[in-house]
Amino acid sequence: MKSPAGLLLSGIELDRDSTTPLYRQLYLQIRKQILTGRLQGGIRLPSTRTLSQELNLSRITLLNAFDQLIAEGFLVSRTGAGTYVGDEWERAGGTEPQPPVPPKLSALSQSMLSLRSDHFRGVSYAHCGSDTPTSFLPSHGAFEAFPQAVWKRLLSRHAQKPSKALLGYGELQGLLDLRRAIAEYVFDARGIDCSAEQVVIVSGAQQAFNLLAMLLLNPHDPVWMEDPGHIAARIAFQAHGCRVVPVRIDDQGIDVQQGIADCADARLAFTTPSRQHPLGVTLSHSRRLELIDWAASHERWIIEDDCDSELRYSGRQLPALYAMDQTDRVIYVGTFSKVLFPSLRLGYVILPKPLVEPFCTIRAVMDRSPPTLLQAVTADFMCEGHFIGHIRRMRVLYQARQQCLVDTLKRELGGLLRIAPVEAGMHLIAWLPPHLDDQLVARQLAEQGVHTYALSDYCLQRYLPPALLIGFAGTPQVEAPAKVRALAQALRALGHLKP
Amino acid sequence: MKSPAGLLLSGIELDRDSTTPLYRQLYLQIRKQILTGRLQGGIRLPSTRTLSQELNLSRITLLNAFDQLIAEGFLVSRTGAGTYVGDEWERAGGTEPQPPVPPKLSALSQSMLSLRSDHFRGVSYAHCGSDTPTSFLPSHGAFEAFPQAVWKRLLSRHAQKPSKALLGYGELQGLLDLRRAIAEYVFDARGIDCSAEQVVIVSGAQQAFNLLAMLLLNPHDPVWMEDPGHIAARIAFQAHGCRVVPVRIDDQGIDVQQGIADCADARLAFTTPSRQHPLGVTLSHSRRLELIDWAASHERWIIEDDCDSELRYSGRQLPALYAMDQTDRVIYVGTFSKVLFPSLRLGYVILPKPLVEPFCTIRAVMDRSPPTLLQAVTADFMCEGHFIGHIRRMRVLYQARQQCLVDTLKRELGGLLRIAPVEAGMHLIAWLPPHLDDQLVARQLAEQGVHTYALSDYCLQRYLPPALLIGFAGTPQVEAPAKVRALAQALRALGHLKP
Repeated sequence: MKSPAGLLLSGIELDRDSTTPLYRQLYLQIRKQILTGRLQGGIRLPSTRTLSQELNLSRITLLNAFDQLIAEGFLVSRTGAGTYVGDEWERAGGTEPQPPVPPKLSALSQSMLSLRSDHFRGVSYAHCGSDTPTSFLPSHGAFEAFPQAVWKRLLSRHAQKPSKALLGYGELQGLLDLRRAIAEYVFDARGIDCSAEQVVIVSGAQQAFNLLAMLLLNPHDPVWMEDPGHIAARIAFQAHGCRVVPVRIDDQGIDVQQGIADCADARLAFTTPSRQHPLGVTLSHSRRLELIDWAASHERWIIEDDCDSELRYSGRQLPALYAMDQTDRVIYVGTFSKVLFPSLRLGYVILPKPLVEPFCTIRAVMDRSPPTLLQAVTADFMCEGHFIGHIRRMRVLYQARQQCLVDTLKRELGGLLRIAPVEAGMHLIAWLPPHLDDQLVARQLAEQGVHTYALSDYCLQRYLPPALLIGFAGTPQVEAPAKVRALAQALRALGHLKP
Repeated sequence: MKSPAGLLLSGIELDRDSTTPLYRQLYLQIRKQILTGRLQGGIRLPSTRTLSQELNLSRITLLNAFDQLIAEGFLVSRTGAGTYVGDEWERAGGTEPQPPVPPKLSALSQSMLSLRSDHFRGVSYAHCGSDTPTSFLPSHGAFEAFPQAVWKRLLSRHAQKPSKALLGYGELQGLLDLRRAIAEYVFDARGIDCSAEQVVIVSGAQQAFNLLAMLLLNPHDPVWMEDPGHIAARIAFQAHGCRVVPVRIDDQGIDVQQGIADCADARLAFTTPSRQHPLGVTLSHSRRLELIDWAASHERWIIEDDCDSELRYSGRQLPALYAMDQTDRVIYVGTFSKVLFPSLRLGYVILPKPLVEPFCTIRAVMDRSPPTLLQAVTADFMCEGHFIGHIRRMRVLYQARQQCLVDTLKRELGGLLRIAPVEAGMHLIAWLPPHLDDQLVARQLAEQGVHTYALSDYCLQRYLPPALLIGFAGTPQVEAPAKVRALAQALRALGHLKP
C-alpha cells in the first residue's frame, strides 16, 4: 500500500510549459488532494528536501506553495516535526466517490424534460447556426440596421456616474419612466388606455407567460391554445400542468366557436390577434367580439400576445383586444425583442387593475425587475422619438425585404412552393406539396446548411398542408437571390425539385 | 334620454391650455368613446358645423380629427348623408361595465398573497425610503465607490457597433466568456473545481432559488431552512408548496443534529455557510462534514447560498461546501448583487454535472439568459482583474466602516444595545434588551425616519433575544456619528433610552 507521501507524489503532475507558475500548480494540486479527501487530515508531508528531489523543484518553489497552504489552513507546520495536513481535514471513512446515479428530480422537472425536444426545436435559436449565409430563421431581424450610435449615447448618458437610483435595487414593478413611456406608446399605437400603474416590466414575453400561468391557472385547468400556435407559450402552460385545448385558425383567426364546442369552460385563451403566430392572419373584428364575450360571460381570461404588431405592412391595424375589452378579462403582453433586439430582455405586461398587485407579488417572489440601466435607456429611446422612428424604418425595410424574397422565391421555386406573403411579422409561409413531410424537409435542409422551421412544429393537430416558415426580416435584397438559390439547390439535391 | 350626438358632445372635454393639439384631443376622445362602446356602430355624428359651434372649434380642427378617424376605420363618411361610426363597432347589448368582482386566481397565487406581507417587509428595498440620511438597511453597499469609469469604458467597448452576437438571442446557459471567468474565480476564491459547462447564468440568486425548487422539489416536500434565515428564499420554497422545517443556528452555524432529529428525511437543506444570513456565523468545518454526509446518505440536496462570502473581514475563509462535496449533492449559488451592484441582475448557479441539462431545460421554459451586453461587460470586468481589485477595496472600506459604526454605537448606545461585529457581510447585529419587541421597535424607528430590520423578521421560531440588523456597508465613517445620534434620538423619543 502506498504511503501518504507516495500518494501525494504520485498525484502531482507539473506542466513546466504552462503559463501557471510551478509553485501555483503545486499549491492547487495539493489543495485539491486535501479538499477531495485524498490527503487526509493529520497526514505528515514529505520534507521539502525529499519533495524538491522527487518533483525536481527548487525549495523556494516548494516553500512558496507551502506558505500559502499554511496561511489558508490546509497545512500546519509543527516546528521540528515537519508539515502536516490540518486535522480538520480528517474525513469520516467511505469518501470513495460513489458511482453516479440519475438524480431524483421533481415531477414538474420530469414533465418539462419530456417536452424538451419540442421546446428546443422551437425555441433555442442559439443552437441553429443562425449566422450561416442561408438562414431563413424567423424572428431574426435586421440587426445591422439597429441605431447603435444613438443607443450607445443613451447608455453612456446613464452610465455617467454611479448613483443609488441606477445601481441599487430598482422598483419591483419596473422603472416608472419606462412604464410611463409604454403607457403612452400603447395608447397611441394600440388604442390601449391604461396608466403606468397597470404596466409591469418583465424580462420578456416568455417570463410573462409563466408568471401569468402561475397567477391565473391551477394544474389541469384547460387552456385554449391557437393551433398552429406559439410553441414556447404552450410549453409554459403545459409545464404548469394545464391541459392544452387546440383551437384551429381560419382566415379570420382563432375559431372561437370551435373552441366553445370543444371546451367552453376553458379558464384562459392564449391568442395573437394582431398577427397570428405563425400563420400571420389578423383576427377579425367580429371574432374579437366573440372572444371577449366568451371570456366576459364566465370570468375567463384572455392573454393577448401582441408580439410583432408594430411590423405591419398591409391591411388595417385593429386596436388591441385590451382596448376593446370593458370587462377586465384581457391581459396584454408586449416585447421589445422584435422591434429593438432579443438580448435586451425587456418586455411588459398590461394588466386589468385588480390583477396588478397579485401579479407583482408573484413576480417579486420569482424574480426582480430587469436591469435598471437598460430600462432607463429604453425609456429615453422611446421618449426622444427614436423608438417610433426605428419602427417606421424597420417597417419599410422589412416590407421591401419581404417583397423581394417573395418575388425571388416565386421565380425560382414557384413550381414547388406556394408563397403567401404576410400582412405583418418577420416571416412568410411557403406551402409545400401535400405529399411532403415538412419536418423531414426542414431537417434535411438543415443538414444541407439551409435553416427554416417546419409549420408542423407549431401544430397540435395535423389539419394544415405542410409548409416552411421563411424569415425575410434578416434577408437583405442583395442576399435574397443567393439564399434562394441555395435553398433551390438543396431542394434539388434532396430530390424535391426537378433538376 | 340623451341623443347619441348629445352623448358625444357631453363626453368631450377639450383642454385649450394643453400641449396636445385640439384636433388630437378630439380624435383621442372620440376614438375612446367608440372603443369603449359609448358611441355604437352606425350612429350618425352631428355635422361638423354643429360640432364646431357646440365645441367652439374651427372646422379645420374638426376635419383633421375626422380624417384620421375615417382613415383608421372608426368613422365612415357617406357622401351626402354625413359621418357615421363604423358598423363594425356595433356591440352586442349589455356593454355597461359590470361592478368589479375580485378576480379568480390560482391556488399558488393565493398562497403567495398570504405570504406577501412578510415578503415585502423582508425583500422590497424599493419601498424603504433607503435614501433617508438614517438608513441602516442591510445589503446597501458603497455605491459611490463603484468603479463606474471602468464599467462605462467596458460598456462602450461592447456597445460599439451592432452585431448579431450581441443583439441576437444569447446562449441559453449564459455567455461562455462569463461562465469561464466565474469558473476560474470560484476555483481560486472558493476552492471549487468546476467547468464552465457546470455554470448557468441567472438573473440573481432569487431566480436561482425558484428554478432549483422547481427542479428538485415536489409540493409538500420538507425543506430545511436556517432559522433565522433568508426570507426571500423561504418564501420561494413555500410558494412552491414545500414544507419548511426550521433548523436553529448556534455558534457553529446550522444545527444539523437538530434538523435530523426534527425531520431526517427532508429532501433539501438551504444554507448560507460562509456567512450565516442574517446572524453572520461561519459554518464550522465539522458541521460542513455532518451536513454533506447527511445529504450524501439519502440523495438529498444542499443549496449553498454563498452570498457575501467575498466580504470577509476576520476569521479564516473556509472553502465552499461545494468544494468539499464528492457526492454531487451540493448546488452552489452566487450573485453579483452585493460585490458589484443589485440592479445588474446577474447571478450564477454551479451544478453537479447530472443536474446541468435538467436545470437548463427549466430555465429555458421559464426565462432566457440575462442581457448579453451586461454579461459581456461583467466577463471583461473579471478577466481584466477589476473584479478582484474591487472586492479587495470594498473589503477594506467595509471593515473600516464596521469598526467605526461599532465604536460609535458602543459609545452612544452601549447601555441599551449589545453590539456584535460580524466576520463577514454588510450588516451587524445589535441585540436589544430581552423585554423589547424588535419588530415593534423597528416599525417605531421607521416612523421616526430611521430604517433597520428586526431580527424577528428572519425568524421562524422565537428562541433568540430581540435584535436589529444594522447595515454598515452604506455608512461612511463621516456619517456614522450623525446617523447613530439620529438612532439614539429616536430611541429616546420612543422611551427606550433614558434622556
